[in-house]
Amino acid sequence: MKNIKLTLQYDGTDFKGFQIQNDERTVQGEIKKALKKVLNEDIITNGCSRTDAGVHAKEYILNFLTNSSIPADRMMYPLNDKLPMDVRVLKSEEVDLDFHARYSVKEKTYIYNFVNRQHDLPLDNRYSALVKIPIDYEKMKDCLNLFIGKHDFKAYMSNSGQIQTTIRTIKDLQLIKNGEKYTMIITGDGFLYNMVRIIAGSLIYVGQGTLTKDDLLEALETGNRKKRGKVCPAKGLTLEKVYY
Amino acid sequence: MKNIKLTLQYDGTDFKGFQIQNDERTVQGEIKKALKKVLNEDIITNGCSRTDAGVHAKEYILNFLTNSSIPADRMMYPLNDKLPMDVRVLKSEEVDLDFHARYSVKEKTYIYNFVNRQHDLPLDNRYSALVKIPIDYEKMKDCLNLFIGKHDFKAYMSNSGQIQTTIRTIKDLQLIKNGEKYTMIITGDGFLYNMVRIIAGSLIYVGQGTLTKDDLLEALETGNRKKRGKVCPAKGLTLEKVYY
Repeated sequence: MKNIKLTLQYDGTDFKGFQIQNDERTVQGEIKKALKKVLNEDIITNGCSRTDAGVHAKEYILNFLTNSSIPADRMMYPLNDKLPMDVRVLKSEEVDLDFHARYSVKEKTYIYNFVNRQHDLPLDNRYSALVKIPIDYEKMKDCLNLFIGKHDFKAYMSNSGQIQTTIRTIKDLQLIKNGEKYTMIITGDGFLYNMVRIIAGSLIYVGQGTLTKDDLLEALETGNRKKRGKVCPAKGLTLEKVYY
Repeated sequence: MKNIKLTLQYDGTDFKGFQIQNDERTVQGEIKKALKKVLNEDIITNGCSRTDAGVHAKEYILNFLTNSSIPADRMMYPLNDKLPMDVRVLKSEEVDLDFHARYSVKEKTYIYNFVNRQHDLPLDNRYSALVKIPIDYEKMKDCLNLFIGKHDFKAYMSNSGQIQTTIRTIKDLQLIKNGEKYTMIITGDGFLYNMVRIIAGSLIYVGQGTLTKDDLLEALETGNRKKRGKVCPAKGLTLEKVYY
């Protein structure tokens, strides 16, 4: 029995998210079909994260157990021949049996891209959200430190079933401006449902003057969701890297 | 009578090129429809270049004459409301009556993107070609100087009707490598049909060992098309900037 780790890249535009669902086009569903063809086995895969419909991944990690005799580092080639264009295996490798793509995660980095202008930029539109109301970059940057560290992020999430704890630690949060284009880069030990997109939405609301830094702090301290921003669109979000 | 200059951006993936054609989805056709709705006139537009099906533009220039009373700098907003998502007016402005988007061009810069690996990268696939055979970057860089300056590029074109001259001047040609990703940046006073995509294809053939630097020089000196590379795919090509 071998434990295989795959590094995937996918364009989330035409997927209903990572996780397999009946009758929906999902990344996990496409991987399962390709594995069945290549390994001739029904494989159970563990993904590092349940990315939502429309969310992209630059380096997504997945693992599975198999008895296949195909060398692990060669497995990516037949898999890629079977996969659709919008998902690819970047690397396949054998790892220790105790490696688990989700439970072994130490940190993840997400990026959130948006463009601040009246109309979309066609060449950025697929991987960036559009923010029409003008924003103040300095006001947004002034809020970044609020989020860094260990906090109860229960205000900065959407509801999605039971979870054990809403405490997470953000290691780093940056906001880079390049003309009309903005990139938020966030690294943490884990993220609650919609948390990255809500933090982006909260910074944008401060930039537009709809909320203040004090509001965001109040949301963080009290859990009051009226004091944070909205969930930003999925297409601006990319899972950038997973650390083990 | 006013002369209006529009700066456009478009994703060429779903267009059959810039130039208007019956029953085909073209950039010029979409612009014509939007102008008809906004200005209530049948407008004749002059584009700076006939980009092919699948070719993108970051800053494409177009001009037209109108008697409309809408201020030139405001015209972009109603136009963008009428245009499909994959084409946008970045700027609208009034220019001198003698400005012509095609005849007034002094120089243009194109970029050609490609990825050198076995399978596509889903997040780059839309704007990059895939080159599967490994390439030698140093061999390719060594050829760049061949093309710079004034030459007869008759070998480095595809046939497309009558043209007055096949002499063009390349001002600058660079090839940048970033891991598996390559970008060719070329600036010149004009380009023959498929010329940028053939220069990219020729550099790639040298990188793969299919042709040599001497072959490319021979093609340039004699017009022998067997000594140059193939036309690279449209999706890797973007019209970056037009200088007047």
